[in-house]
Amino acid sequence: MAQEANQTADAEDRTAALARDGAARIEWVRTHSPVLDGYVREAVNDGSLRGKRVAVVVHLEAKTAFLATVLADAGAEVIAAGSNPRTTDASVVAALRERGMTVVADAGGDYDSWELELKAAADCEPDYIIDDGAELTMRTAEHRPDVFAKLKGVSEETTTGTARLQAMSAAGNLPFPALTANDARCKHLFDNRYATGQTTLQALLRLTNRQIAGARIAVVGYGYVGKGLALYAKAMGARTFVAEVDPVRALEAHTDGHTVGSRAEIFPQAEAIITATGGMRAIGEADIQYLAHDVVLGNAGHHDLEVDTEALAAAASNVFESRPGITSYTVGDRDLHVLAGGALVNIAGGSGHPVEVMDLTFAVQGLGVHHLASTELEPGVHILPKALDDSIAIAKLASYGITLDELRADQRDDHTARMEEGGAA
Amino acid sequence: MAQEANQTADAEDRTAALARDGAARIEWVRTHSPVLDGYVREAVNDGSLRGKRVAVVVHLEAKTAFLATVLADAGAEVIAAGSNPRTTDASVVAALRERGMTVVADAGGDYDSWELELKAAADCEPDYIIDDGAELTMRTAEHRPDVFAKLKGVSEETTTGTARLQAMSAAGNLPFPALTANDARCKHLFDNRYATGQTTLQALLRLTNRQIAGARIAVVGYGYVGKGLALYAKAMGARTFVAEVDPVRALEAHTDGHTVGSRAEIFPQAEAIITATGGMRAIGEADIQYLAHDVVLGNAGHHDLEVDTEALAAAASNVFESRPGITSYTVGDRDLHVLAGGALVNIAGGSGHPVEVMDLTFAVQGLGVHHLASTELEPGVHILPKALDDSIAIAKLASYGITLDELRADQRDDHTARMEEGGAA
Amino acid sequence: MAQEANQTADAEDRTAALARDGAARIEWVRTHSPVLDGYVREAVNDGSLRGKRVAVVVHLEAKTAFLATVLADAGAEVIAAGSNPRTTDASVVAALRERGMTVVADAGGDYDSWELELKAAADCEPDYIIDDGAELTMRTAEHRPDVFAKLKGVSEETTTGTARLQAMSAAGNLPFPALTANDARCKHLFDNRYATGQTTLQALLRLTNRQIAGARIAVVGYGYVGKGLALYAKAMGARTFVAEVDPVRALEAHTDGHTVGSRAEIFPQAEAIITATGGMRAIGEADIQYLAHDVVLGNAGHHDLEVDTEALAAAASNVFESRPGITSYTVGDRDLHVLAGGALVNIAGGSGHPVEVMDLTFAVQGLGVHHLASTELEPGVHILPKALDDSIAIAKLASYGITLDELRADQRDDHTARMEEGGAA
Amino acid sequence: MAQEANQTADAEDRTAALARDGAARIEWVRTHSPVLDGYVREAVNDGSLRGKRVAVVVHLEAKTAFLATVLADAGAEVIAAGSNPRTTDASVVAALRERGMTVVADAGGDYDSWELELKAAADCEPDYIIDDGAELTMRTAEHRPDVFAKLKGVSEETTTGTARLQAMSAAGNLPFPALTANDARCKHLFDNRYATGQTTLQALLRLTNRQIAGARIAVVGYGYVGKGLALYAKAMGARTFVAEVDPVRALEAHTDGHTVGSRAEIFPQAEAIITATGGMRAIGEADIQYLAHDVVLGNAGHHDLEVDTEALAAAASNVFESRPGITSYTVGDRDLHVLAGGALVNIAGGSGHPVEVMDLTFAVQGLGVHHLASTELEPGVHILPKALDDSIAIAKLASYGITLDELRADQRDDHTARMEEGGAA
Repeated sequence: MAQEANQTADAEDRTAALARDGAARIEWVRTHSPVLDGYVREAVNDGSLRGKRVAVVVHLEAKTAFLATVLADAGAEVIAAGSNPRTTDASVVAALRERGMTVVADAGGDYDSWELELKAAADCEPDYIIDDGAELTMRTAEHRPDVFAKLKGVSEETTTGTARLQAMSAAGNLPFPALTANDARCKHLFDNRYATGQTTLQALLRLTNRQIAGARIAVVGYGYVGKGLALYAKAMGARTFVAEVDPVRALEAHTDGHTVGSRAEIFPQAEAIITATGGMRAIGEADIQYLAHDVVLGNAGHHDLEVDTEALAAAASNVFESRPGITSYTVGDRDLHVLAGGALVNIAGGSGHPVEVMDLTFAVQGLGVHHLASTELEPGVHILPKALDDSIAIAKLASYGITLDELRADQRDDHTARMEEGGAA
Repeated sequence: MAQEANQTADAEDRTAALARDGAARIEWVRTHSPVLDGYVREAVNDGSLRGKRVAVVVHLEAKTAFLATVLADAGAEVIAAGSNPRTTDASVVAALRERGMTVVADAGGDYDSWELELKAAADCEPDYIIDDGAELTMRTAEHRPDVFAKLKGVSEETTTGTARLQAMSAAGNLPFPALTANDARCKHLFDNRYATGQTTLQALLRLTNRQIAGARIAVVGYGYVGKGLALYAKAMGARTFVAEVDPVRALEAHTDGHTVGSRAEIFPQAEAIITATGGMRAIGEADIQYLAHDVVLGNAGHHDLEVDTEALAAAASNVFESRPGITSYTVGDRDLHVLAGGALVNIAGGSGHPVEVMDLTFAVQGLGVHHLASTELEPGVHILPKALDDSIAIAKLASYGITLDELRADQRDDHTARMEEGGAA
Repeated sequence: MAQEANQTADAEDRTAALARDGAARIEWVRTHSPVLDGYVREAVNDGSLRGKRVAVVVHLEAKTAFLATVLADAGAEVIAAGSNPRTTDASVVAALRERGMTVVADAGGDYDSWELELKAAADCEPDYIIDDGAELTMRTAEHRPDVFAKLKGVSEETTTGTARLQAMSAAGNLPFPALTANDARCKHLFDNRYATGQTTLQALLRLTNRQIAGARIAVVGYGYVGKGLALYAKAMGARTFVAEVDPVRALEAHTDGHTVGSRAEIFPQAEAIITATGGMRAIGEADIQYLAHDVVLGNAGHHDLEVDTEALAAAASNVFESRPGITSYTVGDRDLHVLAGGALVNIAGGSGHPVEVMDLTFAVQGLGVHHLASTELEPGVHILPKALDDSIAIAKLASYGITLDELRADQRDDHTARMEEGGAA
Repeated sequence: MAQEANQTADAEDRTAALARDGAARIEWVRTHSPVLDGYVREAVNDGSLRGKRVAVVVHLEAKTAFLATVLADAGAEVIAAGSNPRTTDASVVAALRERGMTVVADAGGDYDSWELELKAAADCEPDYIIDDGAELTMRTAEHRPDVFAKLKGVSEETTTGTARLQAMSAAGNLPFPALTANDARCKHLFDNRYATGQTTLQALLRLTNRQIAGARIAVVGYGYVGKGLALYAKAMGARTFVAEVDPVRALEAHTDGHTVGSRAEIFPQAEAIITATGGMRAIGEADIQYLAHDVVLGNAGHHDLEVDTEALAAAASNVFESRPGITSYTVGDRDLHVLAGGALVNIAGGSGHPVEVMDLTFAVQGLGVHHLASTELEPGVHILPKALDDSIAIAKLASYGITLDELRADQRDDHTARMEEGGAA
């Protein structure tokens, strides 16, 4: 009995310690999120979110927790779930629970438990969803069509999720307005490019303890994420390779100084390959033949299967852990190393995006859900109004003490002005 | 008499020598323009341009001359004029005339003679115009409304010209279709960013014989041109400053590592300032007070008045030439140096864009005018169809021997596919 | 009793698990250390080290463990100690002990226990020391003058240690030959510049979860370490500041595009400051006044007191942990954050240098101690012979499959050749 | 008669106009040479140079002219000659003659006339020579051994010349002190690296009108000049290749992100190749087989034969001018383009080094010849005292308004201090 009591007390102590650690992490985020903690906090606090149930389904770590906190402070009933079973932070879960939020996620889960979590989130009958990959939106449609039918809006984080929502809309299956946060300039220009580039490389280097200077790094996909990755890798001295299916992007990659080619051409030369396509199986069964011995494979896209670990496991004679966070597959006489199990390596194998960038991204999400709650929008996929998008940049610049330049009237092109008045003809 | 005969013979010799020099320059362009000399030459040679009068009104140097040649080879009657009185190359004019083209421009002219040239071009009654800044389109509307009314289409090169055409269209004064070449990805992603960046810096450094490493360089305007400029300057070791009126672009500039501020803040720190706004008077009368002694001012935008040389002249107690291509204004105790009289410094003070980039830009223009001639388009401002835009990139990649990567069917996101089939709900 | 037995068994299990983890880490190092595992392994295995006692006193993690293993395989009796109490890796200690080496260090110690470890190392009566900061050499002189008198040689890793050995030599107190590994080109050109630059930034970004793009980063000291740091920070988009006391280095920093000034000038502008002076108190009591609120302070030099944490503690009204690895000092209304307690941040707050670089550095150390054992050298401070230094680079290039270019006879400058024959006069 | 008078008057007018142009160029140099026009001007003006005959044999353009002017203003009798027949500027010659200096060079000469110029310079019986490649020193030894025997000192600019002087000294043929300006940190760290890098690329791009982004550029030789070149090319988006014979430098090139290999491996991939070896025939007869069609060859080293144009001419079926400054050799079915006839391309095909850098280099030369004149030095090759070298950097920093950081006493490493006092043993 005494022992049990002790164990319970111990567990309570551990939970309390976890919650304290989580709270400290969230506080660090707060102090470095001037837009979210200032301009957005004020903007969303007009009553529109009061009593609304908002499901926040983004990688559940400290930055997400601070977004949830700002929404809760504005009166929303927040339900927090994770967007990937490998990226949930136990200390943050503990801290959010201590703040009285509904957290339907736990660290250390797998895909099965994560499915249950998402169903639990749907069962909480949210009015709005801040989604990542449309994962909760899709599952709500399947698991709780009644809740889906009553959904008032979704604000979606990623390229992948946007494609899914657009497909739903095209098929006539989107009965509510959805905002694609990813299309906001304050999101994709910063989050996808700088943040993923920086933190993916950090994770690659930390997990492998390898050197970037002189290394041959390949990137699959040259969207904003791939551009950021290749840019940073090159800036740090890597020799960079890019595979891309869009011809203009491929030409951009060439002009940016990367060596461009098909996967069959560039994979054999690469010491590390990062996928950034937003699709699946960018390194698939058919590509295994091209991989060099000792290559490191990491994923920067939404899907855990951009690096097809199922195909690797099927092809491997041996699977072992080379270092913490590195699963190695022996295929023939080659060892192929996968980072963080193929999950988003900057989150599952690191601390996720820098706090400064998530201050922008979550400002888009926070203003987005507020816009959904305070404005009458048609069903379908929408983008954040330019004025709101701009207002975030203005708040961020102000937090840096930066003065925006201003146009004087005499800077206007005389001819354009004259033509607008119809003067030319 | 004998003397006069000699003089005539001398002039003929000089013209022939000029034409030979021009022909050599055009030949150098041809050998480095695989897209224009291959794919485009073939595509436009289907008869649609036969007998059509096409006015080419772009900076009249060797690359423009090769575009004119390709169009003439396809059967068009080409009328060549310049888009700026300071950028016409005498040797190229001689070579084009020797090829039998109508050239209404001459090197060494001024704004008055240039106006006459443009009127002469309008008097040639073109069917189509490849325009730069909409300069000929505007003047045709004013000088020859009858010709304007019969115009079949315009393909426009620049941001400035696009704004002018859109203003005409909005005012109901655009009775024909116009293509905005600048909106083609194969144009603005390469021409505006890499080409202007590289060659503007080249011209700045060549005209001044100054060092880039450690220099403080300011850029006004952070569109594609400004980005390219600031990127290259920073890459070469400059400390870079940016003034921008759009908040998201300003935040991008900050994140790219430039010091961002208003003109009043950054001008006093700059050793060189380059304007890239597409508007007028980016360095205007009100800004002169902020300029440091010995500052170098250059312009990378369409307008010769982005650096307001009229205001400088009015404020100056002395105007002198410091070095070839540098006009210096003494204002109080400061010397302010203007490059190439404020004209586009990379053309007026250099050799213009690299030939590889103009291969892309002029492919857009060549295909554009062919598209206008072979397709029925509504009056108004259009963009080049994506397929044509892509086809240029594909041809360019092929000329480099680069293989485009290809999507396999299994790379498609399963969920998106399922949703397109309406499976989610 | 049973419980005790269980606890013992548990402890054995834990030790065995630790040793397995350590062995895996050492194996990862081996597979990425082609020079040490190939050329050096062969070169040192000629019997000269057989039965010699070699103390290896370098940060005790997997790469050091592999050097120790190569020396042990060549017949040396290796004594392993750490060069800093905060950088010893428990798993590596367990693995080395399992291999039968004498390890006088344990993870989790403090300065007091570390002093005892170094004394224990001296008590092992080494013949040779591979030292870092001359820490063991100094202590042997003090603690065991008898052992010091019989020492046959020291190979020293750092700038700081080299200065100390030269001071000893100048004072007539160095009765044996010492090699300054740091002066080998294969060491300082790669280790100090690329490796410290990369991994220090990695640690800074990982510990803080902050963004590098646009951040204002200051570096104190512009030697090879400082150059690497500033170069990488700038390459990743930071705005960089440098304080340096040597005028030529300061001018280099300016020309490399960094903003150069005194600490009083640049500290107030910095969001993060990294010290790289090799001395002490680069951020000392007198500098605290210049630090901005929320600044992050990290150290990339040998001394734990380059950031004077004693002075910070004395000035602080509160000391707390903001995030794991970040100690925050509240001084007035400012929070000042110190990374990894001021210890070398890339080791204490990361995984140390990349394995590829330590392959070079430890090749220098391995060949160095072998050179000491197989060659008769005068007492005093020596550098590694150029031929040995070059041989390491040749082996590394070969491991990359890189062909060195070769001079043909006709490439020699004719005049120089003629003059060497005395033909000029 | 009248006509002859007119012609004479015309020639006078032209000379006067030339001299005015030259004077303006020199004035531009003066205003951007704060060290030479301030600190050095003052330092050398102590009478030591009064009445001394100083031959200045450096590429004869505006910056050299300003050095000559400073020396003349200090009382020296300056004799100016060029160090290469292709790099003499007519306007500068005219301006120096108008200032009363002895100029033994003229623009437009060839190797034969240049030999005569150098002999004329030797005949002027200089006391001191500021030399470039030791060209005048060697010829004085041959042509005027009597003058050579009385020479009081030489200050030499280049790596090539230093090697020649050291060979003379080793052969016992150097009866006077020589300073190797190139070994001064204020020379080679800035002039060789930043200045040659920047201006060689400028010349390459200007002469060819080609694009740098994505281009494949090879550099032969990875000394300071080659490093600067490769660094700048890579920074501007080129894919870079390096051939180098020194293994450590080759490994540095690899680690800097360049693709390293033998000439046979990298030449076939290169669109442009720049030589920077300081020797001869870096692209020699044996290498022609490896060159790709349309490759551009330029030289950044002292020798006009680093690109062996004699071998190219012998192998070519046709030689023609593709563009001004580009000589093209048809070898088999390939066209090989040589810039500026193989002479130093940044000078012969551009305006030479940036003025800011020559302010440093010529400060070294000016202080060097003053040091020779005011100090008793042994015959042989010397380097500039560190204090003088540092003083130049200090003056340059001051001209930028930069504050040098200062060491406080407490920053000294305690252990080193203690050991210097002999306290360790």
